[in-house]
Amino acid sequence: MTPKHPSESLTILTDLVLPSETNPLNNLFGGELLARMDRAASIAARRHSRRIVVTASVNHVAFNRAIPLGSVVTVEAKVSRSFKSSMEIFIDIWVEDRESGNKTKANEAIYTFVAVDDTGRPVEVPQIIPETPLEIARFEAALRRKQLSLVIAGKMKPEDATELKALFI
Amino acid sequence: MTPKHPSESLTILTDLVLPSETNPLNNLFGGELLARMDRAASIAARRHSRRIVVTASVNHVAFNRAIPLGSVVTVEAKVSRSFKSSMEIFIDIWVEDRESGNKTKANEAIYTFVAVDDTGRPVEVPQIIPETPLEIARFEAALRRKQLSLVIAGKMKPEDATELKALFI
Amino acid sequence: MTPKHPSESLTILTDLVLPSETNPLNNLFGGELLARMDRAASIAARRHSRRIVVTASVNHVAFNRAIPLGSVVTVEAKVSRSFKSSMEIFIDIWVEDRESGNKTKANEAIYTFVAVDDTGRPVEVPQIIPETPLEIARFEAALRRKQLSLVIAGKMKPEDATELKALFI
Amino acid sequence: MTPKHPSESLTILTDLVLPSETNPLNNLFGGELLARMDRAASIAARRHSRRIVVTASVNHVAFNRAIPLGSVVTVEAKVSRSFKSSMEIFIDIWVEDRESGNKTKANEAIYTFVAVDDTGRPVEVPQIIPETPLEIARFEAALRRKQLSLVIAGKMKPEDATELKALFI
Amino acid sequence: MTPKHPSESLTILTDLVLPSETNPLNNLFGGELLARMDRAASIAARRHSRRIVVTASVNHVAFNRAIPLGSVVTVEAKVSRSFKSSMEIFIDIWVEDRESGNKTKANEAIYTFVAVDDTGRPVEVPQIIPETPLEIARFEAALRRKQLSLVIAGKMKPEDATELKALFI
Amino acid sequence: MTPKHPSESLTILTDLVLPSETNPLNNLFGGELLARMDRAASIAARRHSRRIVVTASVNHVAFNRAIPLGSVVTVEAKVSRSFKSSMEIFIDIWVEDRESGNKTKANEAIYTFVAVDDTGRPVEVPQIIPETPLEIARFEAALRRKQLSLVIAGKMKPEDATELKALFI
Repeated sequence: MTPKHPSESLTILTDLVLPSETNPLNNLFGGELLARMDRAASIAARRHSRRIVVTASVNHVAFNRAIPLGSVVTVEAKVSRSFKSSMEIFIDIWVEDRESGNKTKANEAIYTFVAVDDTGRPVEVPQIIPETPLEIARFEAALRRKQLSLVIAGKMKPEDATELKALFI
Repeated sequence: MTPKHPSESLTILTDLVLPSETNPLNNLFGGELLARMDRAASIAARRHSRRIVVTASVNHVAFNRAIPLGSVVTVEAKVSRSFKSSMEIFIDIWVEDRESGNKTKANEAIYTFVAVDDTGRPVEVPQIIPETPLEIARFEAALRRKQLSLVIAGKMKPEDATELKALFI
Repeated sequence: MTPKHPSESLTILTDLVLPSETNPLNNLFGGELLARMDRAASIAARRHSRRIVVTASVNHVAFNRAIPLGSVVTVEAKVSRSFKSSMEIFIDIWVEDRESGNKTKANEAIYTFVAVDDTGRPVEVPQIIPETPLEIARFEAALRRKQLSLVIAGKMKPEDATELKALFI
Repeated sequence: MTPKHPSESLTILTDLVLPSETNPLNNLFGGELLARMDRAASIAARRHSRRIVVTASVNHVAFNRAIPLGSVVTVEAKVSRSFKSSMEIFIDIWVEDRESGNKTKANEAIYTFVAVDDTGRPVEVPQIIPETPLEIARFEAALRRKQLSLVIAGKMKPEDATELKALFI
Repeated sequence: MTPKHPSESLTILTDLVLPSETNPLNNLFGGELLARMDRAASIAARRHSRRIVVTASVNHVAFNRAIPLGSVVTVEAKVSRSFKSSMEIFIDIWVEDRESGNKTKANEAIYTFVAVDDTGRPVEVPQIIPETPLEIARFEAALRRKQLSLVIAGKMKPEDATELKALFI
Repeated sequence: MTPKHPSESLTILTDLVLPSETNPLNNLFGGELLARMDRAASIAARRHSRRIVVTASVNHVAFNRAIPLGSVVTVEAKVSRSFKSSMEIFIDIWVEDRESGNKTKANEAIYTFVAVDDTGRPVEVPQIIPETPLEIARFEAALRRKQLSLVIAGKMKPEDATELKALFI
């Protein structure tokens, strides 16, 4: 299975914030943004694996900045690292000012998808070779996040999470 | 400000999985479930604070179990701990078998909301007094999760995250 | 077939009034509320019968109180009485004030569902044993409503509707 | 205020049954049909009154015939009788067979709307002069339905419902 | 195959402009109107052909007049001409003033549909016999539009488009 | 007002074909694709003009290729030419095969938007300087399309449409 670059799975979903997607403060609902990110990330995972993919987990997502009604929101998703049959997808959210055209980073999120066959059983996916400095940094951090997930799920003992442990000692 | 019990914010959202909410395997889309959890959690946060609330972050969410078209899904959300103006909401997802009536735990998720005034500025919220053993366990773990968020966001040094550090040593 | 209590089918659907669901006065559309009640009632009917269920009729529904944008609305549905293959579902609608937390009764509605097999043919359902005084009152009134439906549909002569006739003489 | 004929408020809403609007048997959801009828009826009430209108009640609606995915459904609504500020809207639902072109009556429903001003207070509406035999029959029956509503709501004593009482004696 | 009149395929879709369908100026989104016209036109094409139909093309559509939130919009579609397996559908859009009841023409659009069998292969459709002067004018212009489509698609040489050429010489 | 390049308004909207967006042949509805193109084109027009923009017209759109449920569809929109206050947007639609990753051109469409101020009055927009051969070809053809629109709308005499006339003589 030929390894791939993150850029090969880059998925861009630019769309408006419509009136039906806003909360009482007239900003984009957190839930709607989570759903858009899920769709974009699933396409990135599919482009990497050429398989049916299903959401396995959503890592910590911080909503740092409210996104008002009528904004142009760009969701950019690409695979940051793959494991056996799972892929970590890194998502950057940009919001664009209509008048100045300035794009501001509004959020970052990390989703994990698993590639499956028609019966829903996990199948292997290509490895990732990161290229840019940012891709390399995200690739390396992905292992710590994986260990953290396993520790949180009780599937790995904290003392075995070597990458993670290094952070705290 | 009188402290409150988690049970006072309990929010139950039972609904069907409709055809428009499914992925190519005919299971509920991860993104749709994230959106439903966000709505239920926002109501729980509102019931605790009696304020406008906005999604601040989504903690690690694992999708352990596919939820097929036509299922009855119950989202149960309640406040597990509150900090100054933020509230951690713990969400349990149950899926019900139509024929046997058995309810199975399908997912757990943790969202954080912030209470704000009409201009979007954070305001204080009541404290939480957990009652059941499960509420107490979730209340205590909330502090570790809070430290983890701060470490990940670069707002706390790993060595200062005493609760968290204890896990690894 | 073991009879069941109304509480066994209790279904709670708590959700927000979103901007896409409002009329020109910024209140929840009657049609959207009818649709939510139909989904909650269908789940209650399913919990009672453990079968596929389809809407058979909607009894008189009065919209006494406008429900403004951003409200928290709770739909509570439970089976009030079952006949051979049909179930009467009683639905209470509560609206919650964000600031005080007071819940106010906004509406009542009654839907009838029929349990069917995979080919759409009616199948038998368990009987209901009401427990609380309110459940008993609704159970008894259900027979009058059934007769009224039959009279309106021209399937029963008014003079044979003994329960109903008693009301007017 | 010049009286109007039912035909002046006739509203026709012909649309497809889309995949997102179906139940597990692949037929149109009762709740979706209730919502479409509410929109068509509100337009008819608006055409009669030239005012903002809000749903006041839904009379007994029977779902006699399943409407499969992909069907063409026609909702025809017109005002059958008006009272001071309320209007009874009679709705006929037709389903069309794609191959033969035959239209079959699938349902009938009756909604009541109230005309209001910008502040939500009831305002007077024109009277109705029925023309066809069907319009005349529906106009006359409307009074009995009105009395029935009042009796059910506990706002009229059964013995004062002269029109209704006549049915049972 | 018996020819048909345009009136036999007349399809009327009257509906409200809902809050979720508006742009930042609070008017109906162009995209939503295009979608409604597509559904109404597909029903007209189906009524003419009694077949499965798919959108083949959309001719020039001008949005001359903004349609504000809360408007009543009527889409009227009928087949203006049929070719071998394709049908040109002419669509008139009317907007109604709530207070005066005046209907104003807001748009015109032309869609082309193709009738297909279950496998998606084109099948023959009945011819059209126009009746009113407007139907006759639209029937005749349809041939020029057909030639224009072919020229634009590069499937006909401009010099062979006799009907069209006549316009310019 | 500084002229701009088409690439400065490039807008990419990649998304899935969801079950609620399909017709009876399980392909993407024409109407849904028209709505997505409208949203992407409106963002491109906004990026070019930094103004509120409204749909003015849709040019001939051909649906050459069915797009099945579950496909990944990419809508790419950029401004091809601007006139005083209007902008022609050229849209390319690509569909991606999940297994091979091959992208196929499924459609082309041309929309026209007008830039307006807060009161809906047209305002001037920057000119376009095309760069690639394809952009130059589209820029030049835009004038012919503009003349064609004017002729169809009866706002220009066919004999004055010099660019267009040249096609036929």
